[in-house]
Amino acid sequence: MIYFDSDYMSGAHHKVMERLLKTNSEHTTGYGTDPYTAKAADLIRKACGAPDARVHFLVGGTQTNATVIDGLLARHEGVLAAESGHINVHESGAIEATGHKVLTLPSYQGKVSAEDVRNFISSFYSDDTYEHMVAPGMLYISFPTEYGTVYSLNELEDISKACHDAGITLFIDGARLGFGLAAEGSDVTLEDIARLADVFYIGGTKVGALFGEAVVITNPSILKHFTPLVKQHGALLAKGRLLGVQFEALFEDGLYFRIGSEAVRKAIRLREAFESKGFKAAVPSPTNQQFFVLPNAVIDLLKEEASFEMWGPRGETESTVRFVTGWSTTDEDIDALEKTLLTYLKSSCATAVM
Amino acid sequence: MIYFDSDYMSGAHHKVMERLLKTNSEHTTGYGTDPYTAKAADLIRKACGAPDARVHFLVGGTQTNATVIDGLLARHEGVLAAESGHINVHESGAIEATGHKVLTLPSYQGKVSAEDVRNFISSFYSDDTYEHMVAPGMLYISFPTEYGTVYSLNELEDISKACHDAGITLFIDGARLGFGLAAEGSDVTLEDIARLADVFYIGGTKVGALFGEAVVITNPSILKHFTPLVKQHGALLAKGRLLGVQFEALFEDGLYFRIGSEAVRKAIRLREAFESKGFKAAVPSPTNQQFFVLPNAVIDLLKEEASFEMWGPRGETESTVRFVTGWSTTDEDIDALEKTLLTYLKSSCATAVM
Amino acid sequence: MIYFDSDYMSGAHHKVMERLLKTNSEHTTGYGTDPYTAKAADLIRKACGAPDARVHFLVGGTQTNATVIDGLLARHEGVLAAESGHINVHESGAIEATGHKVLTLPSYQGKVSAEDVRNFISSFYSDDTYEHMVAPGMLYISFPTEYGTVYSLNELEDISKACHDAGITLFIDGARLGFGLAAEGSDVTLEDIARLADVFYIGGTKVGALFGEAVVITNPSILKHFTPLVKQHGALLAKGRLLGVQFEALFEDGLYFRIGSEAVRKAIRLREAFESKGFKAAVPSPTNQQFFVLPNAVIDLLKEEASFEMWGPRGETESTVRFVTGWSTTDEDIDALEKTLLTYLKSSCATAVM
Amino acid sequence: MIYFDSDYMSGAHHKVMERLLKTNSEHTTGYGTDPYTAKAADLIRKACGAPDARVHFLVGGTQTNATVIDGLLARHEGVLAAESGHINVHESGAIEATGHKVLTLPSYQGKVSAEDVRNFISSFYSDDTYEHMVAPGMLYISFPTEYGTVYSLNELEDISKACHDAGITLFIDGARLGFGLAAEGSDVTLEDIARLADVFYIGGTKVGALFGEAVVITNPSILKHFTPLVKQHGALLAKGRLLGVQFEALFEDGLYFRIGSEAVRKAIRLREAFESKGFKAAVPSPTNQQFFVLPNAVIDLLKEEASFEMWGPRGETESTVRFVTGWSTTDEDIDALEKTLLTYLKSSCATAVM
Repeated sequence: MIYFDSDYMSGAHHKVMERLLKTNSEHTTGYGTDPYTAKAADLIRKACGAPDARVHFLVGGTQTNATVIDGLLARHEGVLAAESGHINVHESGAIEATGHKVLTLPSYQGKVSAEDVRNFISSFYSDDTYEHMVAPGMLYISFPTEYGTVYSLNELEDISKACHDAGITLFIDGARLGFGLAAEGSDVTLEDIARLADVFYIGGTKVGALFGEAVVITNPSILKHFTPLVKQHGALLAKGRLLGVQFEALFEDGLYFRIGSEAVRKAIRLREAFESKGFKAAVPSPTNQQFFVLPNAVIDLLKEEASFEMWGPRGETESTVRFVTGWSTTDEDIDALEKTLLTYLKSSCATAVM
Repeated sequence: MIYFDSDYMSGAHHKVMERLLKTNSEHTTGYGTDPYTAKAADLIRKACGAPDARVHFLVGGTQTNATVIDGLLARHEGVLAAESGHINVHESGAIEATGHKVLTLPSYQGKVSAEDVRNFISSFYSDDTYEHMVAPGMLYISFPTEYGTVYSLNELEDISKACHDAGITLFIDGARLGFGLAAEGSDVTLEDIARLADVFYIGGTKVGALFGEAVVITNPSILKHFTPLVKQHGALLAKGRLLGVQFEALFEDGLYFRIGSEAVRKAIRLREAFESKGFKAAVPSPTNQQFFVLPNAVIDLLKEEASFEMWGPRGETESTVRFVTGWSTTDEDIDALEKTLLTYLKSSCATAVM
Repeated sequence: MIYFDSDYMSGAHHKVMERLLKTNSEHTTGYGTDPYTAKAADLIRKACGAPDARVHFLVGGTQTNATVIDGLLARHEGVLAAESGHINVHESGAIEATGHKVLTLPSYQGKVSAEDVRNFISSFYSDDTYEHMVAPGMLYISFPTEYGTVYSLNELEDISKACHDAGITLFIDGARLGFGLAAEGSDVTLEDIARLADVFYIGGTKVGALFGEAVVITNPSILKHFTPLVKQHGALLAKGRLLGVQFEALFEDGLYFRIGSEAVRKAIRLREAFESKGFKAAVPSPTNQQFFVLPNAVIDLLKEEASFEMWGPRGETESTVRFVTGWSTTDEDIDALEKTLLTYLKSSCATAVM
Repeated sequence: MIYFDSDYMSGAHHKVMERLLKTNSEHTTGYGTDPYTAKAADLIRKACGAPDARVHFLVGGTQTNATVIDGLLARHEGVLAAESGHINVHESGAIEATGHKVLTLPSYQGKVSAEDVRNFISSFYSDDTYEHMVAPGMLYISFPTEYGTVYSLNELEDISKACHDAGITLFIDGARLGFGLAAEGSDVTLEDIARLADVFYIGGTKVGALFGEAVVITNPSILKHFTPLVKQHGALLAKGRLLGVQFEALFEDGLYFRIGSEAVRKAIRLREAFESKGFKAAVPSPTNQQFFVLPNAVIDLLKEEASFEMWGPRGETESTVRFVTGWSTTDEDIDALEKTLLTYLKSSCATAVM
């Protein structure tokens, strides 16, 4: 069986595991006050070109989103997000549980537009009854999005400007940031992200770590008491150095970026394999998530050898599926998939000829 | 340097690490739907003598407390706890953040009394204005407590009865459960805990795992939708099998219990070392946390060779300190500490003679 | 100036004021434990044909919605509501502040369809990841809706069935219930509401009282500890009898219903006045709120003599407006409005002829 | 029967009722945007000597406390309050429901000491683990307190300084402010309160209004978006002018202060009546609440003619009781009580002589 279900199906990159093993019996103080955490934060600041950024390490994405958003918003405010945004769809109401509404914007294959942000805000404040409505206090976007798409540098600059012109903050969910930075044709760098967002995070869980998300706060006037908030959200890991050790391994020699680009390269190979057989991508994704609309017969055949997710309900004759590559995907996995596809086509050709 | 600061200063027991390493490159589905998690849950049910218990794995203690308590209480209810309880003191208001008051009971070296529980409840409902006050909806206790003490079986039976007579639930925080079950002179078993509590957790973070807490729900009528609540609290680990793998290693052949009893044995050796030199324990703790009131001169000397925590502010001539043993504490650590103590005594004798 | 802005612009019906004045110097116990409150609750139970219903009096609509919804939902659940529902739009995030998401359904002139409710729920539970999403725990509808529309008895029966088949509760916001029950052509009675909803409220603020909403709980298994929840929400009036006194006045001889039908009769007259001059209603409302799309010139002229609300932004040549009648609207107010309209038409005819 | 149960047992002062009646049929815009509310705010600013203060009107005390505290605190902060403070005892957890812990200080007959505030804060920040605890973000005090006591000007200056030195805000609950300002021997004026607190409220419910609390925000840097927060808390009255009209009546010619001093004068007469018969006050209260420890026989006799509250459980031979005077208490009420007391004494003397 070859696995394309998601990018969190296997453990950690072997370099990360080695480092965890090597440091396992050392004694350090807890809750992120150890030297590994300090070192990892330094490496991340350097990689971001943001020497004054504050870096905090949390365990998972939902808790990171909830903690950051809870800390950024005033009580009467909500968070703007694409209707398809993870916080609006797949976090069991974690944002609302902190008392805040998710204010939805149209989703363009997972992305929001700066114009929609501007319109929302100007229309909000031009309504006489705006004090009876939830004020937009920040914008949440994901990079890459839940559909694998990425913003261009121009788009990101414009969105950042739209937020800051309106006096709201920009938070970028980087659960899959490594894949976004390696996106085919992308002109956005980690430094750009750090410069344009007020706060963002560098996802480890899906990019080579066992778990862990590195929150980078570049705006010095926000989230001033972040540690107690992280603790309050149950997101402060007792053995905090586990996060430091992992992110040190990921950032000391560019492993994080290599994992990203390798997985994206394989995803593009995978897409080309489908396309060369006549199956078109459902979303033009330049990252490690690829979506296709496939005949149910093809899906059933592929399911015998590969594991992947249905994206939405099964259709009458065809359905949408998602294939995801990760740090552990190999070129052999792609070869095998391609071969299966070929087999199918030959057999269906034969059927057609008969 | 020898380390007695806490039981979460080093990584995981080597058997746990081996298992993580061995399974690292396997692919499994996420969020705890994998076979390792299922296996670990089975082992725990067996160890608890509770074949119908539901077992969920979370990452850390504070998030576990907040998730369970949030799920147990009705909106108008609060949680009874010892004034010294972790949820009342050291969780940055995580319980209140879910909207609930911590209703405090007197702490007897970390323990509450069944009588105080009964009195609180009867006095609450005999007050005409009780509907203007926060109703006691459950009791939180820790086993062992924050002071290393444990309840006897009689005490636990009585507390459980007090709760159930009053129609409230009993939740036991077992962050250090392994040490509590191995407590010197204790007559309480894991089966007792499972039988007397409605829900409790088996702490992994402090007892040999990298992280992880196993929530055991024995009362079938509570916490019926626990998974979405865990997700909402940001406590559902994406690579959930990491928890399954670790708890499988801890429970398949009794490792969890051996870690507990070994650490407790060393803690008792440590206490005897102090006591034999004339220093009395500040709290009669039968578990892996030991508290002493020491002359500041002794503290300063010990600090040169050992690392441990001050418990409260430094006094004028003497102060309270805490020594904690863990899975990685060795008999050599205790020998070394004893030797240092002896050195001190000889030197102070010499001084006295002069 | 004649006033059609809303139904909460003047004080209370004179019979309500008289009663408040008459009882003003009496002494009663507070927080709704007085005989007036008991009497009013009895009258309401009788009017609802629900002898076992529990009746609680709160001050305003937003607080009533938040208190009821907070009490009905489990922590992992959200409330289904029309996208146009008051709780989703105009309550400053009061529902989210209690920790719950508003799950939106399509709005058909303010109404939801039973089919959409059924589809939402079945599609929710057929999604593999439903435990990562907010579970629908109840349905909120308003009667009449924010657009003045009402459900037919058939529709209401079907919606109630859809909820109860799915095991969720139905809550009806009756902030303007008096006008809904008097709706032109309606076949829904107060008894129907009481029978089909699990809990609803009878709005006083907009129907003759100074303030006050009577919550009627007909499902005995819900909201069992409602008083402390009301207190927690800051919604328990100290001089609670003020609510009892007002609702007694409204319900002892049918005043509540007369206020409703009188206001609706005048609203229909008002609509006919517009229609007879060629202006069509924007929404087919059978209650006391009437919406029209009018040429801006007409709006400007009317504004000189009447006060009413713009509904949305002013258009280039025409705009939508809302006219509301209430307990204090007189037939002379309608006459005056009609006359103004006539004047406009004559003058524009004259202009056209020139 | 004469009533001394509380100061919210009857309706409103007749001047307030007259004004409500007189304005009843007028039409004004809702939610506090009317001219009466503007006028009342002006009068209050003038009475406070605080021309730039922002004044908002809410309905009741618990909702006011919750709304203000929710708006003042950052998410990781709690509110300091006397253990006996209303928010800690009698508001059904309304503060915790907003996510914040009440951090308790010792209560000295309802008052806190500046020294305790200073000690709490310095001890908090000197604890290594303070980021794991709830940070003190503000101080809540009541004036007068729940025991009828008041702070001297010196005490209030010191408390205000303690707060501002530590960078936290001071909020004064003035539910009974009128009686506090009229306290026997008090040197604190409304201007002092306005100058020393960052925000406070002037209670109307207990001082002559039907309901209503006027929040006065004198610190310009706090609570900048208070109206949406009030709406979110369900505390924005639709017919907002009812609050403006009442506070205008209370403040346009000093009625508020006269109600306070008249009720206090009668409370002092009442206390002297008890004292002259040999019964001592249980708390040295200089305001309208008076507490006595009385023989149960006296209590039983008094209960035949007067209504008042037991303060705590009934003792074996004597119990504590509370007598409260209000705007509707008359000198005849006090005469009657005194007479009853005298009767008791004569009869018990006679018994003693026999």
